Amino acid sequence: MRHTLAHLEESKIREVANAGMGRPDVLAFWFGESDEATPDVVNEAAIASLRAGETFYSHNLGLPALREAIAAYMARLHGPAIDAGRIAVTSGGVSGLMLAVQALVDPGDEVVAVTPVWPNLVAQPRILGARLQCLPLRPRGDGAWTLDMDALKRAVTPATRLLVVNAPNNPTGWTLSAAEQREILAHCRATGTWILADEVYERLYYEPTPHGCAPSFLDLAVPEDRLVVVHSFSKSFLMTGWRLGWLVLPPALAAHMGKLIEFNTSCVSVFTQRGGIAALQHEAEIVPRVTAHMHLCRDTLLPLLQAVPGVRAHAASGGMYAFFRMDGHGDAMATAKRLVAEAGLGLAPGNAFGPEGAGWLRWCFASRDPARLVEGVARLRKWLEKAGAL
Amino acid sequence: MRHTLAHLEESKIREVANAGMGRPDVLAFWFGESDEATPDVVNEAAIASLRAGETFYSHNLGLPALREAIAAYMARLHGPAIDAGRIAVTSGGVSGLMLAVQALVDPGDEVVAVTPVWPNLVAQPRILGARLQCLPLRPRGDGAWTLDMDALKRAVTPATRLLVVNAPNNPTGWTLSAAEQREILAHCRATGTWILADEVYERLYYEPTPHGCAPSFLDLAVPEDRLVVVHSFSKSFLMTGWRLGWLVLPPALAAHMGKLIEFNTSCVSVFTQRGGIAALQHEAEIVPRVTAHMHLCRDTLLPLLQAVPGVRAHAASGGMYAFFRMDGHGDAMATAKRLVAEAGLGLAPGNAFGPEGAGWLRWCFASRDPARLVEGVARLRKWLEKAGAL
Repeated sequence: MRHTLAHLEESKIREVANAGMGRPDVLAFWFGESDEATPDVVNEAAIASLRAGETFYSHNLGLPALREAIAAYMARLHGPAIDAGRIAVTSGGVSGLMLAVQALVDPGDEVVAVTPVWPNLVAQPRILGARLQCLPLRPRGDGAWTLDMDALKRAVTPATRLLVVNAPNNPTGWTLSAAEQREILAHCRATGTWILADEVYERLYYEPTPHGCAPSFLDLAVPEDRLVVVHSFSKSFLMTGWRLGWLVLPPALAAHMGKLIEFNTSCVSVFTQRGGIAALQHEAEIVPRVTAHMHLCRDTLLPLLQAVPGVRAHAASGGMYAFFRMDGHGDAMATAKRLVAEAGLGLAPGNAFGPEGAGWLRWCFASRDPARLVEGVARLRKWLEKAGAL
Repeated sequence: MRHTLAHLEESKIREVANAGMGRPDVLAFWFGESDEATPDVVNEAAIASLRAGETFYSHNLGLPALREAIAAYMARLHGPAIDAGRIAVTSGGVSGLMLAVQALVDPGDEVVAVTPVWPNLVAQPRILGARLQCLPLRPRGDGAWTLDMDALKRAVTPATRLLVVNAPNNPTGWTLSAAEQREILAHCRATGTWILADEVYERLYYEPTPHGCAPSFLDLAVPEDRLVVVHSFSKSFLMTGWRLGWLVLPPALAAHMGKLIEFNTSCVSVFTQRGGIAALQHEAEIVPRVTAHMHLCRDTLLPLLQAVPGVRAHAASGGMYAFFRMDGHGDAMATAKRLVAEAGLGLAPGNAFGPEGAGWLRWCFASRDPARLVEGVARLRKWLEKAGAL
């Protein structure tokens, strides 16, 4: 097999989760998904489609009705320049990201990725044979992460084919301001660099805004800009297991994307897409409720975490994670494994998201019952007390 | 975007199908799928899963229960060396093929593909930056296609990273004998070349055999051979639209495949996998019935086609296609477009599958109602008569 594959890292999150296998007493917050199942109205649309015998191949770019619904949704959030011709329906956000990298990156091309970030974003360019440069965010003393704009401008040059950025960010919760996005877009226009923006957490944003939505590159770009934005039904529609997402593309690239989808996954099953159409029809009932609940979860977990002596945790503006560190526990992997074994608490080690995350832990606060979060912090406190740290 | 993407060919089948858009009077045989929907027992398993709230992320390599069921099915057909540890569940056969190419092919590597073949198999190595060499099958006077084994041995050298072969073949219906497979395997062992065998049509095989199954490389290989076999629920379980397939891998490669699935599609939705488990539980009711019906379809279509003056068509041993040519109609694309417009008959142009297919037409005979095939040939005859050819 390829050297590249042999050397792709196994998920460090799974390494910790495996240590907790068959332990129903573990409170698990390691994976990036809510423990709330998909709304019935979405399930029932897929069920009706299956009962109607919609079990055949479909359009590479997605059902026209779903592309129209997505475009209308995106246009409402980000302006009328987004039409259905720019939308490609994908088998989850991950597949959308992989397709974008396949479309843009030749072997040997230079890719810059803002890190820490979930591992898929840096693995995909490697699979395509690109040269990857990581641009680290910097932690402040209070646990918040920030972008060094000058460093970004130094890293992204005319030799840079693609800039990969995920904001609101998994794992740190870091977000980009509109002003920062404007500066990045202007710089990448000057260098001729493509921007691949993973904005799947845009609706999980806790600052007051007109549309309940994080700042997006789509608010600023023209359709012809070298910009691909990746979205997913997973997080804000509670549809992680459906594997349904989409890309917003420049028109010229959309025309070619159907071919890549044909050669990767052919299409998304029609019954899954019917679920997506129902989700968007009921978006006004689903997403604000999910966001408000995530907000409540964040505001339940963070003050409790921050009150634990030695913990540095910042309440991020977006996403569904607390990314924090604890004095005296610099080895995240060892700490995460001990927390599973000794405290029954399942967290993700920060170094799963790049070397910048070493010493940090990620806590997914998307919990149907916020009492689980309270119990989780109680276990953490008890464990620290036992260890003599408190 | 990449030069590679811009120059990937659009599907020539879609080009013909688009010419028939909005024409309900066209009898369409262009796509490679039956017009029979998925059996209810499969749909109901997915429905039960959705109702049970199985809408979360799942294992990269597939549900253990599905991997076990697939392994038991494969072992029954191909011997006990196949266990669940060698199975990876994929988002359709296409995704399985793409994953295999990503696992095995570095940019610049040499790949040999036996052609004509469905376009995805030659597009995928190009996307990965490989150098592709096509090894043409040869048509006999009666319309059957054969492999030149000496040419294959000359083409596959120690410099060849991967040999891609699809048998039973789409579009020609060509199949490999066990003796040929043995010879290819021995040669590739000597050159150190991986074999990527697309065997998705193995159950659509019309020669008498003990298991109702075409010869397979899995019958001959040991687990450690450099062999990846791609399968799909699409054809023999009537599940094209589900996007569910699997890979049979050497154990050492299976251990790494989960990473690639994570970075491509993460996993297949659990409710889709529940459909796959039900399909295998009811395999004895579904597959022999589907195969017998396809056999009937082949034996309905082929004699009628062969009786048309000027047609050269061979009743192939496997697959679900008649691949044929007509004297005086050497431009397959032009003929296919005229047949849509003037005869209301939808066929795929042979050059969609490589230059060797120029002058040939592909007719998918997977038709729920064989009377459609009879009517199709009547339309072809009438059109030829009008054109003064008969």
